[in-house]
Amino acid sequence: MLKFEIAKEDEFTKARAGLLHTGHGCIQTPVFMPIGTRGSVKAIQPRELLEINASIILGNTYHLYQRPGVEVLQKFGGLHPFISWPKPILTDSGGFQILSLNELRKLRRDGVEFRSHIDGSYHFFTPEKVVEIERQIGADIIMVLDECAPYPSDREYVSKSIELTNDWAMRCKERFNASDALYGYPQYLFGIVQGGIYDDLRENSAKQLITADFDGYAIGGLAVGERADQMYSVIDFVTNFLPTAKPRYLMGVGTPDNLLEAVERGVDMFDCVLPTRNGRNAQVFTSKGTVNIKNAIYRFDGGPLDDECDCYACRNFSRGYIRHLFSVGEILGLQLASLHNLRFFISLMAKTRTAIIDGRFREFKQQTQSKLSKKKKEEI
Amino acid sequence: MLKFEIAKEDEFTKARAGLLHTGHGCIQTPVFMPIGTRGSVKAIQPRELLEINASIILGNTYHLYQRPGVEVLQKFGGLHPFISWPKPILTDSGGFQILSLNELRKLRRDGVEFRSHIDGSYHFFTPEKVVEIERQIGADIIMVLDECAPYPSDREYVSKSIELTNDWAMRCKERFNASDALYGYPQYLFGIVQGGIYDDLRENSAKQLITADFDGYAIGGLAVGERADQMYSVIDFVTNFLPTAKPRYLMGVGTPDNLLEAVERGVDMFDCVLPTRNGRNAQVFTSKGTVNIKNAIYRFDGGPLDDECDCYACRNFSRGYIRHLFSVGEILGLQLASLHNLRFFISLMAKTRTAIIDGRFREFKQQTQSKLSKKKKEEI
Repeated sequence: MLKFEIAKEDEFTKARAGLLHTGHGCIQTPVFMPIGTRGSVKAIQPRELLEINASIILGNTYHLYQRPGVEVLQKFGGLHPFISWPKPILTDSGGFQILSLNELRKLRRDGVEFRSHIDGSYHFFTPEKVVEIERQIGADIIMVLDECAPYPSDREYVSKSIELTNDWAMRCKERFNASDALYGYPQYLFGIVQGGIYDDLRENSAKQLITADFDGYAIGGLAVGERADQMYSVIDFVTNFLPTAKPRYLMGVGTPDNLLEAVERGVDMFDCVLPTRNGRNAQVFTSKGTVNIKNAIYRFDGGPLDDECDCYACRNFSRGYIRHLFSVGEILGLQLASLHNLRFFISLMAKTRTAIIDGRFREFKQQTQSKLSKKKKEEI
Repeated sequence: MLKFEIAKEDEFTKARAGLLHTGHGCIQTPVFMPIGTRGSVKAIQPRELLEINASIILGNTYHLYQRPGVEVLQKFGGLHPFISWPKPILTDSGGFQILSLNELRKLRRDGVEFRSHIDGSYHFFTPEKVVEIERQIGADIIMVLDECAPYPSDREYVSKSIELTNDWAMRCKERFNASDALYGYPQYLFGIVQGGIYDDLRENSAKQLITADFDGYAIGGLAVGERADQMYSVIDFVTNFLPTAKPRYLMGVGTPDNLLEAVERGVDMFDCVLPTRNGRNAQVFTSKGTVNIKNAIYRFDGGPLDDECDCYACRNFSRGYIRHLFSVGEILGLQLASLHNLRFFISLMAKTRTAIIDGRFREFKQQTQSKLSKKKKEEI
């Protein structure tokens, strides 16, 4: 069973600071997890991830199963040595990717059929098979196979979907219990609460799920198109039904604002493509809000991307230079912006943790959000 | 006047080991200079250049003049602080790029007219103007404006071309002497010998050029389509007419083999896009020859790109992983291959220098070339 220590619970909100113990080291929560879908956090080297204090990264079962394939990963002793990453890894099941990326897929009671988006080959993922693949990949934390209902979906669809998802979750848990980790360190299994924006369905999903006593619980199916207030309301509601002693992971979310709101509502773990995807497109997160570094106003600007940041990009390069790199299409531009953005998200969660421990989470959140909205006002 | 010390001359060939003193530090020759055309060595961070022991990099006057523009570079105090590079920089004049990249350009007696390939704007580069721009860019070593005659060109064309090039060289030298460095450290001016594959024209070009006593001499107009033996013959011939006490720079060359042959014929400095361009295309230079790392034979290969290399890529990642990165199109693949290739070229020149100093250049060259051709034989 995954050891999760709660170091401090906030007095006024559901925020908490925790410690998650894995075979590849300890993770301080709340935590932001960079995404390395296909075995690489885009344009970032593992030593840079260590440098910016990333403590866990993500991989994707669906993508890694296709390339490099489990036979390669097994030959190398799992994903950690293959990608040369010494700290924890979490793998998503890939259910979301199968259902969203594939035209040729069919949801069945017993699993999901699909054709590879690479070579058209036929595959069938059952809950059991996904757990087996995740054993072979060797992530420290593995996710059950689930269906993330599209938004908007009507009540009836979502109701059936959570039945399926919970059935799959139980089957995953069974296979997980009946199998062993392959590489000499433990693996942990998280369940995923679904239910769209329907409180009662979320409640059902959570209550059924916790009967299986997973190592942690994810909240899935959010940030798929619903309004921010709907998302916050669901998070706030769902965390009431999740055991306090287990880590909670909000999948695929979100902006710095989203993260702070979710921490307040009791979430511990986050992953999102925003820092790297936006970084590749010259969108830079700063303590004073987001900026488009390609903007001509930065041409002569000698200041760093963010004067509160300690990353390599901010310590060594000016906005003017990084703007130039994007203007002429140099890869170094997106490397530096991605590195900075990741550091910004990781640092935001580290500062949030310190604020929780120091008993000043609410002030910290208010001040941080007020600063984050500054740039938007300035640029109007 | 540029201080160039010759530490050792080879007893059996024209190879020599030297020390070039600049305002940004000392350069050990023979040296390979990574190319950072637009202010960035593609996909490589300055700290990585330091790590692989790059001692000088290139910039391109034509490209930097257009973007970011000299007004930006002047505002930042020159190219070094703009790109955060503490060691020497050499700028090519951009003559080659103007003449090869532009449809809309016109060679005149007094300079070259062109329209920008970016915005179509009209520009006129005279020899004097190029020196002024290079003053503003602030490279340690700057190159005269020249015409690199296309290959093949007939005798008459090349003969007229070297007249023009030498006239421009003298005008560059005059303006250089009449102007000052802008940023508190000295700049040095190199002349460029042209003359195609015509020995007598090369001799004329060299003899005229050295009357102006440049700080160093480049051999231009090679590796433009002529056979390797023609190139080696020209190099061997030209170096006879260049002063021993001045550094010699072979522009735009070449493969590891080319470098060793040119060192033997008395060349000290090299630049080439091969390590980075080929690296971005999965072509990896190794001590046993070049390999295409995308090849399926590397899928399960746990060895490094080159087991004799000490770079970050070779110390931490397998051929199997780097192959995977290229297969799925991850940027990290080209970052690692570029870094390794640059280290390979820099290391090759460092080992060559040591061999010259130890008086075993010929054996070193023979052994190295024999190993370099190994892969080719293996893969047949």
